[in-house]
Amino acid sequence: MEKSQLVSQIQALLSEDADRSQFLDLVGPLQPYDISEILRELDHGQQLKLTALLPVEVGAEALEYLEPEMQYRILHHLHPDVAIPLLKEMGSDAVVDLLLAIHPNQAATLKEWLPDEYRERIDTLMTFPENSAGGLATVDYIAVRAGWTVGRTLEHIRKVAREAEVVTYAYVVDAQGKLLGVVSLRDLILSEPDTPLSEIVNREVISVGAYTHQEEAARILSQYDFIALPVVDKDDRLIGIISVDDLLDVMEDEATEDIHKLSGSEPLRETYFKTPVRVLYRSRVGWLLILFLAQAYTGNVLKHFEDTLSQVVALTFFIPLLIGTGGNTGTQIVATIVRGLAVGDIRFQDIARVLGRELLTGTLLGVTLAAATWLRAHLLGVSIQVAPVIALSALLIVVWASMVAAVLPLLLHRLRLDPAVVSGPFISSLVDTTGLFLYLTIARMFLGLN
Amino acid sequence: MEKSQLVSQIQALLSEDADRSQFLDLVGPLQPYDISEILRELDHGQQLKLTALLPVEVGAEALEYLEPEMQYRILHHLHPDVAIPLLKEMGSDAVVDLLLAIHPNQAATLKEWLPDEYRERIDTLMTFPENSAGGLATVDYIAVRAGWTVGRTLEHIRKVAREAEVVTYAYVVDAQGKLLGVVSLRDLILSEPDTPLSEIVNREVISVGAYTHQEEAARILSQYDFIALPVVDKDDRLIGIISVDDLLDVMEDEATEDIHKLSGSEPLRETYFKTPVRVLYRSRVGWLLILFLAQAYTGNVLKHFEDTLSQVVALTFFIPLLIGTGGNTGTQIVATIVRGLAVGDIRFQDIARVLGRELLTGTLLGVTLAAATWLRAHLLGVSIQVAPVIALSALLIVVWASMVAAVLPLLLHRLRLDPAVVSGPFISSLVDTTGLFLYLTIARMFLGLN
Repeated sequence: MEKSQLVSQIQALLSEDADRSQFLDLVGPLQPYDISEILRELDHGQQLKLTALLPVEVGAEALEYLEPEMQYRILHHLHPDVAIPLLKEMGSDAVVDLLLAIHPNQAATLKEWLPDEYRERIDTLMTFPENSAGGLATVDYIAVRAGWTVGRTLEHIRKVAREAEVVTYAYVVDAQGKLLGVVSLRDLILSEPDTPLSEIVNREVISVGAYTHQEEAARILSQYDFIALPVVDKDDRLIGIISVDDLLDVMEDEATEDIHKLSGSEPLRETYFKTPVRVLYRSRVGWLLILFLAQAYTGNVLKHFEDTLSQVVALTFFIPLLIGTGGNTGTQIVATIVRGLAVGDIRFQDIARVLGRELLTGTLLGVTLAAATWLRAHLLGVSIQVAPVIALSALLIVVWASMVAAVLPLLLHRLRLDPAVVSGPFISSLVDTTGLFLYLTIARMFLGLN
Repeated sequence: MEKSQLVSQIQALLSEDADRSQFLDLVGPLQPYDISEILRELDHGQQLKLTALLPVEVGAEALEYLEPEMQYRILHHLHPDVAIPLLKEMGSDAVVDLLLAIHPNQAATLKEWLPDEYRERIDTLMTFPENSAGGLATVDYIAVRAGWTVGRTLEHIRKVAREAEVVTYAYVVDAQGKLLGVVSLRDLILSEPDTPLSEIVNREVISVGAYTHQEEAARILSQYDFIALPVVDKDDRLIGIISVDDLLDVMEDEATEDIHKLSGSEPLRETYFKTPVRVLYRSRVGWLLILFLAQAYTGNVLKHFEDTLSQVVALTFFIPLLIGTGGNTGTQIVATIVRGLAVGDIRFQDIARVLGRELLTGTLLGVTLAAATWLRAHLLGVSIQVAPVIALSALLIVVWASMVAAVLPLLLHRLRLDPAVVSGPFISSLVDTTGLFLYLTIARMFLGLN
């Protein structure tokens, strides 16, 4: 059934005040994600009615897919008898995101609904930066003790499994909460109930610190093919886990961010259609003006060579082609280097190797494009003296663009700035000014102009 | 310990022919991924020795991280008593990738090592395209029958769990292998052993067809936050599952591919440093020459306006700035639209809305940049008649670039071509020629030149 059909059927049932079983027939087969998509289409009153009718596990998971503002509006207007179990059932990472997004007074009200111990753990998670491993972690993990048997562990998992986000692993901690090891549910069900946990625990557990950047956490999780990654504080105490589905979202967002930056615009915080035109404008105008300033110098260079240009107007014909080719070469390299840095293939220490490879590749490309330029000059019927000047300029501009594009992102990365700031347009603008200067200087020298 | 230290310790042990327990002390605490990184550093003889010494589960998983060529070289030269268990233990998705990458004769030899039934399933998987859900699937899933009890199911899982890639779910199939439902290990351990499976099975299982594109499969898995996704043939028979860690790699690769395409170069098939310079050259030169051709027309336009340019040389000063600004605007939009299409935020049906939003945003940006251009013209001291011509051109070029950049990726997507082919450099080249024509036509009209 199409989503629009479902939505209108649900709306009809809601306005008729139909009984709960009719709803569940319709909504029961749906995944929480699908229900969240339906909630978006309903008005506020209908959202409240539908949420109240859902089983609490389903309702809580559906809420998690909505934006914090919408989550709050629903929870705040529901009867506390419905809202409190929903909030308790939601994943603690979603609760943290919600509490951080709303007004502190609103957050305080919601927090009062939570049991003391849970509230304290939420407060800890809230102290970590948004894009850190700690900010992404959930406390809904399964913690067990090293002294237990397999049987006791399974019994404990049965008790807490409904709350846990990932039941694939149980984490072994000591009395101080220090992470000692990890045991998989697979190994637990493969062992006899009276086996001591210490016999099957994996003590070589890979964890990340709470302040690790989320991109680094994603890299580790995807390298080792884990389902979840434990997050520890500076004393090695377990404070939460990050599950792979949260990192899928992180990786998607980080790639989107890099694509926007590499194209010289600020990343959008929302999806395209949720972003109003004034925000689209703001996300673009800043970089366009910076690039404009960087490129404005081309005017000075051209004015400086005014006499040269008026003596041989044919030199003008090749301006867009030469600087365009330089910009294109730079754009290609920047994308490769920035992506290589993001996925961890390239590090700053590799700078000499990168520069060597790019200079070699750039020279090969430069020779190819110089030949193309020479041919183009010939086809455009420019004089026999001008063609080699243009070809030589093409070669030098391509090599120069290669060098700049190879080195700049690495330097920014070294300075702990985002290398994706060196976008294709940024490199093009840099190369435009310097490339023109190169071109017209060569022309003046070789053609004996002034 | 640093990787280089570990490698030299292992090399020392290998040359001393130390006994197995010394190795296991050193290698035991390592994850299979770490061992694969060490294998890369060893020479071929050392690789064989180390692989033979590893427990078969660890060795098989470490092999999976290596390239198919290296996997084959190791398996082929090991004693069959070691190699055959390793191959059987490897994930079936890795085996498929290996068999497809090596020579058919080599593949035939390896296939003979596999049990008949397993070989048949591998043969089925090998028929699907590389970037399809079927091509990514593994047959190492757990299949159970609807008539079983929870107890019998758990017993079965205990038997096959070591082979399975994901034990988080068991898939319920009928006698023909048709997928009927899914049951989670969490629900199994929460239920009494004599509960019929039919009471806890989830029949609303979300699956993908074998020919679904891997990007689409990744989108579904990440939307629904699953750990694995079942893959079915046209008769709804279960042929394999895709696990989330395989899709993490897919998502990373697809993002890398888009970043390369958007910057006007062919994506690399290997990591940066594994790509030889001649391959770097080939991945770039094609697009550079296409862009060169697209941009070469600027020469004709400028030649056409030769008289205009020699009458007012000041017009030349603004050529790089105007076409650069048009290109930058287009690059920003292309990145937003292509990424929106990739993550599913934008569809072809939205074309009118996209165009409307981009025309509005483009007009606002155009007015801003026209003002900046006017100011720039004033600072460069051009005559009072020329400044408004340049400002008007800036406005029109920005609006024109916005239109082209908004529509082209959507059209390509509609034609089932990759929208990322419309790269920033491609849009810039298109806008260069048309923008110049616009600019010089306006100049000629307003300044009364010929």
